[in-house]
Amino acid sequence: MSKPAALIAGAGVGFSGSVARKLAAQGYDVALASRSVEKTETLAEEIGAKRYACDVQDSSDVARLFTELDRDLGPLSFAMFNPSARARGDFLDLDHADVRNALLVTAYGGFLVAQEAARRMVPQGKGAILLTGASASVKGFAKSAPFAMGKFALRGMAQSMARELHPKGVHVLHVVIDGAIRNPGRTEPADAPDSMLDPDAIADSCLALLDQPRSAWTWELEVRPWVERF
Amino acid sequence: MSKPAALIAGAGVGFSGSVARKLAAQGYDVALASRSVEKTETLAEEIGAKRYACDVQDSSDVARLFTELDRDLGPLSFAMFNPSARARGDFLDLDHADVRNALLVTAYGGFLVAQEAARRMVPQGKGAILLTGASASVKGFAKSAPFAMGKFALRGMAQSMARELHPKGVHVLHVVIDGAIRNPGRTEPADAPDSMLDPDAIADSCLALLDQPRSAWTWELEVRPWVERF
Amino acid sequence: MSKPAALIAGAGVGFSGSVARKLAAQGYDVALASRSVEKTETLAEEIGAKRYACDVQDSSDVARLFTELDRDLGPLSFAMFNPSARARGDFLDLDHADVRNALLVTAYGGFLVAQEAARRMVPQGKGAILLTGASASVKGFAKSAPFAMGKFALRGMAQSMARELHPKGVHVLHVVIDGAIRNPGRTEPADAPDSMLDPDAIADSCLALLDQPRSAWTWELEVRPWVERF
Amino acid sequence: MSKPAALIAGAGVGFSGSVARKLAAQGYDVALASRSVEKTETLAEEIGAKRYACDVQDSSDVARLFTELDRDLGPLSFAMFNPSARARGDFLDLDHADVRNALLVTAYGGFLVAQEAARRMVPQGKGAILLTGASASVKGFAKSAPFAMGKFALRGMAQSMARELHPKGVHVLHVVIDGAIRNPGRTEPADAPDSMLDPDAIADSCLALLDQPRSAWTWELEVRPWVERF
Repeated sequence: MSKPAALIAGAGVGFSGSVARKLAAQGYDVALASRSVEKTETLAEEIGAKRYACDVQDSSDVARLFTELDRDLGPLSFAMFNPSARARGDFLDLDHADVRNALLVTAYGGFLVAQEAARRMVPQGKGAILLTGASASVKGFAKSAPFAMGKFALRGMAQSMARELHPKGVHVLHVVIDGAIRNPGRTEPADAPDSMLDPDAIADSCLALLDQPRSAWTWELEVRPWVERF
Repeated sequence: MSKPAALIAGAGVGFSGSVARKLAAQGYDVALASRSVEKTETLAEEIGAKRYACDVQDSSDVARLFTELDRDLGPLSFAMFNPSARARGDFLDLDHADVRNALLVTAYGGFLVAQEAARRMVPQGKGAILLTGASASVKGFAKSAPFAMGKFALRGMAQSMARELHPKGVHVLHVVIDGAIRNPGRTEPADAPDSMLDPDAIADSCLALLDQPRSAWTWELEVRPWVERF
Repeated sequence: MSKPAALIAGAGVGFSGSVARKLAAQGYDVALASRSVEKTETLAEEIGAKRYACDVQDSSDVARLFTELDRDLGPLSFAMFNPSARARGDFLDLDHADVRNALLVTAYGGFLVAQEAARRMVPQGKGAILLTGASASVKGFAKSAPFAMGKFALRGMAQSMARELHPKGVHVLHVVIDGAIRNPGRTEPADAPDSMLDPDAIADSCLALLDQPRSAWTWELEVRPWVERF
Repeated sequence: MSKPAALIAGAGVGFSGSVARKLAAQGYDVALASRSVEKTETLAEEIGAKRYACDVQDSSDVARLFTELDRDLGPLSFAMFNPSARARGDFLDLDHADVRNALLVTAYGGFLVAQEAARRMVPQGKGAILLTGASASVKGFAKSAPFAMGKFALRGMAQSMARELHPKGVHVLHVVIDGAIRNPGRTEPADAPDSMLDPDAIADSCLALLDQPRSAWTWELEVRPWVERF
């Protein structure tokens, strides 16, 4: 029997890497997609995942990715969309291309990947799609309009998808990560233990939702450090 | 070594009963508090829990309850507040006593229990307090003002507690249960499988949050059936 | 022809006083209700308003107030509920009576007044009820649980009322005042002009909503100083 | 002395036309921008407004528009961004180009116009920018993901702008229009009077906010018919 397949789009270090590792440990056949396959080499080797290059805002590239997944893996059970682009700065000085890119990578890319994933899950009447959010998904901060635009849009899509796809058996999950993630190479202030989100912990909380029976589904989960102001 | 202690205030059938059973299975010493001890007799016997009578809106009764818990159990690690009172009807016809009671049971009772629990957890720098919400916690429905008043108030308290107690190591959890719970004796429409929330599933999702390390805490969880409109 | 009548419950200085003055100037017959009639003496004299003593959390007192209004004034067109009680402090140290009082004054009092007002407006198929909120209506701050509890509850009621009473022609308004009000005797920091809410400005914004035709009603308005963090 | 200038981007019939008419009546020099200048011919003639062709998602076109406005009009006091693109349908069948277009017109176009407007207002330390939202700005409906994506993104930008530009004296307004607008040619059901939003009423409510002194600013206004479900 073929193993269930999982796609991590926007795979890298940190949160998406944790999800990939945990799914591999649970017996999933894991596919790692990222703009450049170099960045996932170590991770892929570690967990025995296949790697795919994909520019998520390019619809033909995303279509090609899913054709390859169909060929290489079993039926898709889980897809995660993680990429985002942001630009910080005074609203008056924001570069047009940065804002456009933020929308196209974060939201349009999310749509392209989520739609292809959903097309494979709805006919099965099951599967889960995880979309990565941030505090900017629910709060538009000063000097950070592009990130808010992309993440608000992705959340709007996730909510629309939940209303439409939950009754078709596909579980849509949006995780609002509020705070800095303790990615490799980042260190916490010595006087503020556990003040940065452990990526494994976020992954555990998200993956636990995959076990929810459909009578009690969560579509949005918010996580933040115990000491984070909100 | 003493077992960790858990209090279920407003213990009964359904969701609170599921939480009690699962905690007992995990090795907790479980205390069941309810207005009348009769309603928890079967459950208590089944899981070896102690029973306590308590009117949650009576501050001296709540104080007495916690004195007894201090005497009977080990250090309190978990407390759940579940009681609520509601009244439905045209706004013009709502009975004053019903509205007052809805506020005092659902919100003031929640405060009394949560404060006593927090007083025992903050000095330990750990513990978790779970407050039961509903769709009425975030949406005030027509003809249901009293329930919205009590549940909005409880949520406001939960959010305030999270901001204040998380940095002291106490995890505050508010669960928004959106939909009908499949309590014993209730049957689902034959043509709508899993359209009512399985109480065990809600309990599993809530208790999974107790395992979150403090770098990635959730304060609010929303659960609803896959086919529930929202 | 009798003048339209307006009730200001919780009348005092500041915002409620501004509303009273502006309504009187618009030709309303204004009734000022407060726990003690002394505090409204100057205002009543200034605008020719009648004064009534009323403890808003006492249902018989509220019933008596409305009987007197029925006798003294024309048909009620506008009612405002302004009172609130709060208590600040560590959650562990909050006084039980303070929390209970916060709920009963802010939320239960709001219900008693709003219900009596609605009973007079629904048969006319028109009228407006204004409920005073605060940033604590939508955000539970640390060390301020009682205020959040009362204000969240009042907002839940307001939303439930809007859903139920709008289709009956009664306009329900909830104003979220986010920031400090420049009440008489309060001075702004010299280096922060207009950093405190002008009570007349809040009143103008609220009263402008009374002119909305029913095809485009607002139920909630948020106001904050231009420099307020949110 | 030159008249204050107002730009209506996405000018047409209905709400934006009402805003244009009312501003002209208040003495503003009004500029109407739309993809094709034909659609604003009648309105422009009626109110003596200048017309400009502009594709709001084209950054050079938007830059050119503002250069022309600088040349033709006095200092910009008010700018409204109204355009949106949507596509309805099963999530699985949504056309890629439609989704991309929804984001680029509704959100990126909003950014381009709002940024140019803000660049002219911030140096003056005053001005107002109005962004048109919808119920889809706060709720992602099934089968309507593209509209939610665009409108959520625009709202995220508006909130970010409010946090950043309010302290610089520029008033950012986002109006959530919940319900169908009674545009020319649309008739209400005979048994549901005032069940469609009167565009003049929405315009009045929005323009009233321009009179708010900066000590009590509103950034978001929600309007819906008295009988609209929400």
